[in-house]
Amino acid sequence: MSHDSAWLDELAWDKDGLIPAIAQDAETNDVLMFAWMNRDALARTVETGEAVYFSRSRGRLWHKGEESGHTQKIREIRIDCDNDVVLLKIEQVGGIACHTGRRSCFFQKYLADGRWEAVDPVLKDPKDIYK
Amino acid sequence: MSHDSAWLDELAWDKDGLIPAIAQDAETNDVLMFAWMNRDALARTVETGEAVYFSRSRGRLWHKGEESGHTQKIREIRIDCDNDVVLLKIEQVGGIACHTGRRSCFFQKYLADGRWEAVDPVLKDPKDIYK
Repeated sequence: MSHDSAWLDELAWDKDGLIPAIAQDAETNDVLMFAWMNRDALARTVETGEAVYFSRSRGRLWHKGEESGHTQKIREIRIDCDNDVVLLKIEQVGGIACHTGRRSCFFQKYLADGRWEAVDPVLKDPKDIYK
Repeated sequence: MSHDSAWLDELAWDKDGLIPAIAQDAETNDVLMFAWMNRDALARTVETGEAVYFSRSRGRLWHKGEESGHTQKIREIRIDCDNDVVLLKIEQVGGIACHTGRRSCFFQKYLADGRWEAVDPVLKDPKDIYK
């Protein structure tokens, strides 16, 4: 599939050529992580059937799971009403999306006394994920 | 609650003082919309128990539902591992989050032949929402 395809032109890329991407578990609907994509990342995601993001810190494409093995198999791709956000419905290989070893990156919850608390368990020690 | 609270300082606001916010249905886990927050928006969200975003196009706080009546009652607030994305678990009043009259803003699905298609129904004509 061409990276110049019309379906990519329909998206409202920001001034840096990026678009926010939300990864959601296709079975449970839990939100697992949030990242960014550029045109190449989304094109490769569609081509390969696995989530590819653009790492702003590393300044390069990032095939999710390339180190950890925790790839994300694409079940469905959606965009929002303004064509400026991507939603991936995925199968999370290994059951761990977060680099902390948790299932979801959204493990910190706001408590009424005005603080954030980590409420979800670490499933695997990050030392055993990134060797 | 003070807008200068420590829990707000823990977030990684971007250079424009904003943070992405995902609104998720607390019952079904469906992702309903994506917007941005500044410090005031998140502080008011906590204070009022209803989602308040920062509208980048209007350059001001936006109490979701202020025109449509489709407010979002907060059930839970989470942040991700990098403290730079907010996830709101909400009850969507009126069952419509999208300005197009659909339940979710993410109603456009990628089809294998390389196009986006609106696959979810309009529940209410926007003309009857915004009078």
